[in-house]
Amino acid sequence: MSAVRPDELDWEKMGGLIPVITQEADTMEVLTLAYTDNEALELTLKTGYAHYFRRSHGKVMKKGVTSGNVQKMVDILVDCDNDSLIFLVNQTGPACHLGERTCFHRKLLPHLSSKAERTFMGSLSRSELD
Amino acid sequence: MSAVRPDELDWEKMGGLIPVITQEADTMEVLTLAYTDNEALELTLKTGYAHYFRRSHGKVMKKGVTSGNVQKMVDILVDCDNDSLIFLVNQTGPACHLGERTCFHRKLLPHLSSKAERTFMGSLSRSELD
Repeated sequence: MSAVRPDELDWEKMGGLIPVITQEADTMEVLTLAYTDNEALELTLKTGYAHYFRRSHGKVMKKGVTSGNVQKMVDILVDCDNDSLIFLVNQTGPACHLGERTCFHRKLLPHLSSKAERTFMGSLSRSELD
Repeated sequence: MSAVRPDELDWEKMGGLIPVITQEADTMEVLTLAYTDNEALELTLKTGYAHYFRRSHGKVMKKGVTSGNVQKMVDILVDCDNDSLIFLVNQTGPACHLGERTCFHRKLLPHLSSKAERTFMGSLSRSELD
């Protein structure tokens, strides 16, 4: 497996941000989708704990800095376009601020199985729905 | 597990696009990070095969439309902010256009283990590196 330097990443495509998929290394469960910038990645590499650029706060924050639910870094993978990353971590406590293990704890409405879905899809006429 | 309607997703945050993490349902391996828009999600739900908005092409395309390496949809998960999705799929052939099983087939340079990394980090003085 070849290796990529941080300065080879495509920092321009999203104006200095790169999306990060974070997976629990032991189970491969996806915990979060977040964003890194140069500073957050530097701090992640330097400390061994995941840091992100939090768009809602407009700044870099260590994951779990207030909750204690930190993410110890295990490895970082790079995609073929150098424009997204996977952080493989060992998660302490729940990753989601709602107390769930993962932020992805809900499903999109099942495929074409409900009236609401069909209405959204616009694939059936009104009479077919009634 | 509660359910989310497509029209409840936060389509505004990224100007009509939502990032999609695609995982092989059988192994939980992350294959790609791509983007959906309203049309791509509608086609995905309607056909049962993953479609994405390809930023490099500026249009919606079915995954594998030229290569045959299609992704049969198994499930869709939504994150707690309604601004990112996981497509759980069964992937035919390699997911990566380079012929690799996943687009994430390279590592970021190991943490602080090489001179180049240390130089990038700027965390050590020149004399410490020599």
